[in-house]
Amino acid sequence: MNSSAGEFAYIDWVRQQTPADDRLLIGPGDDCAALRWNPAAPALVTTDMLMDGTCFRLSEAGPRAVGRKAMAVNLSDIAAMAGKPVAAVVSVALPRREGRTLAEELYRGLRDVADAFNTAIAGGDTNSWDGPLVICVTLLGEATPRGPVRRSGAKPGDWLLVTGPLGGSILGKHLAFTPRIREALQLHEQADLHAMIDISDGLAADVHHLCEESHCGALLRAEAIPISNAARTIQDGRSPLDHALSDGEDFELVFAVPATDAQRLLQAQPIRGITCVHIGECVDQGFWLEEDGKRSALEPRGYVHSFQ
Amino acid sequence: MNSSAGEFAYIDWVRQQTPADDRLLIGPGDDCAALRWNPAAPALVTTDMLMDGTCFRLSEAGPRAVGRKAMAVNLSDIAAMAGKPVAAVVSVALPRREGRTLAEELYRGLRDVADAFNTAIAGGDTNSWDGPLVICVTLLGEATPRGPVRRSGAKPGDWLLVTGPLGGSILGKHLAFTPRIREALQLHEQADLHAMIDISDGLAADVHHLCEESHCGALLRAEAIPISNAARTIQDGRSPLDHALSDGEDFELVFAVPATDAQRLLQAQPIRGITCVHIGECVDQGFWLEEDGKRSALEPRGYVHSFQ
Repeated sequence: MNSSAGEFAYIDWVRQQTPADDRLLIGPGDDCAALRWNPAAPALVTTDMLMDGTCFRLSEAGPRAVGRKAMAVNLSDIAAMAGKPVAAVVSVALPRREGRTLAEELYRGLRDVADAFNTAIAGGDTNSWDGPLVICVTLLGEATPRGPVRRSGAKPGDWLLVTGPLGGSILGKHLAFTPRIREALQLHEQADLHAMIDISDGLAADVHHLCEESHCGALLRAEAIPISNAARTIQDGRSPLDHALSDGEDFELVFAVPATDAQRLLQAQPIRGITCVHIGECVDQGFWLEEDGKRSALEPRGYVHSFQ
Repeated sequence: MNSSAGEFAYIDWVRQQTPADDRLLIGPGDDCAALRWNPAAPALVTTDMLMDGTCFRLSEAGPRAVGRKAMAVNLSDIAAMAGKPVAAVVSVALPRREGRTLAEELYRGLRDVADAFNTAIAGGDTNSWDGPLVICVTLLGEATPRGPVRRSGAKPGDWLLVTGPLGGSILGKHLAFTPRIREALQLHEQADLHAMIDISDGLAADVHHLCEESHCGALLRAEAIPISNAARTIQDGRSPLDHALSDGEDFELVFAVPATDAQRLLQAQPIRGITCVHIGECVDQGFWLEEDGKRSALEPRGYVHSFQ
């Protein structure tokens, strides 16, 4: 955070907006922020950069929704480790013409969701340029005493559960989703979560990531996969199931638990208002979709940033 | 860190490059990184976003120098609080065409300076788009037992010292500077640093920030300000002194200490190879430049990201 950081009036405004917070020893406006850290907890760190035209369309979504999304995608990563968010820093490159208004609306959107999850905005770096809006949030969290849930602990025989219906998030959920922070903490208390990931690339792609890290395979059952209303609405020649398997940015969690824990969780539903769905199992190897009693290889399709 | 994060081959490559590090409980490739934290130390957090065409010219500097700068500017912010760097996360938006080679060279540049300052690269988010290169590093550090040095503790009567010659960094130093981490730690051990800031916007602007936060004024003596060879080389109609006062990105430190501490430091020079220079004092109010025995108001000029 050097202070070549936008109109200083904006930084002053941000400082006025920053509520007192015991965790925040030094807030916005110095060279660094300083945080009081829970000595018993490993620190979790995640970062996501969103670019106008690629991850959102500023002209359609508006800046407040963009700020909200930029914070929420990071909260979702903390949820995927079953951690608690603590504080975020926010860097932006603002289009020069509309900078100040844009900056304030972005900040309001960031705060909307940060406040909802008890997350301090500790500082940032505000730039302007002739390019499109770029926003990068880095979020710090703490692992619970049970430790972070990784992608790598799934075992053959584990059941795979998902926290909500999937597909078609482009119709709105990608901006308005609720990060599954509270649900993940409760699941982590109630079950032996072997592995977990948030669905940002698409169910098939993200289960594939989880299985790769866990050195196992998976079998998903088509009839069991919860399909969102949005996925059923899109008329683009792809089936609702295909949308549920391949669309990114649902930001639900998919997790692997021993069968006995899974059965217990399913019986204890709903969990903080949500209903988990059993969509398949981890297997020794291979990556399969079972549909109408037939098993076929499942492509780990999903959104990938491609470059040479 | 969602996994829509560039070619997965690149993430695998980064994981192979990541050395074992006791502080890094979970490194690149999961939803979050996890760090073991020093329970006695407040966490310092800083973030800086650099954009091609604004903060560097990729075609002139090359990607390795850009990666180096992106890490070094953050290290300089940790130095400005007299902290120790611990770990960084790195988000990038890569131009689609040359992504992979660019990503690897950026990473090498980031590691060059991270390794030199015992800083782990814990994770990141790799995107591609049709825009110019944007890179955002967030750096975590820890305060020493003496605490972070803020901008706000300067008192009238304090001497102002600077860690090196200033001006003309555009000729090369803005890419190749050494963050003053080691020097700051030693200064913090040897003196009662009341306030400190790194010179990113320009000496006049940054001393002004320090004074504003400290609710005091400053008097700088023109004859005492160390002027770099680069500032003397530029032939653009502005004086070398003007360059030293107004050019940004020198990334030297300027700090306020009681006169007795300042005198002791100046006698004990050099400090880890550098020579601090006494450039003026903090005063009750006003912001002054003394030149040829005459005192004039000093404009806090420097680089500011302007937007409406």
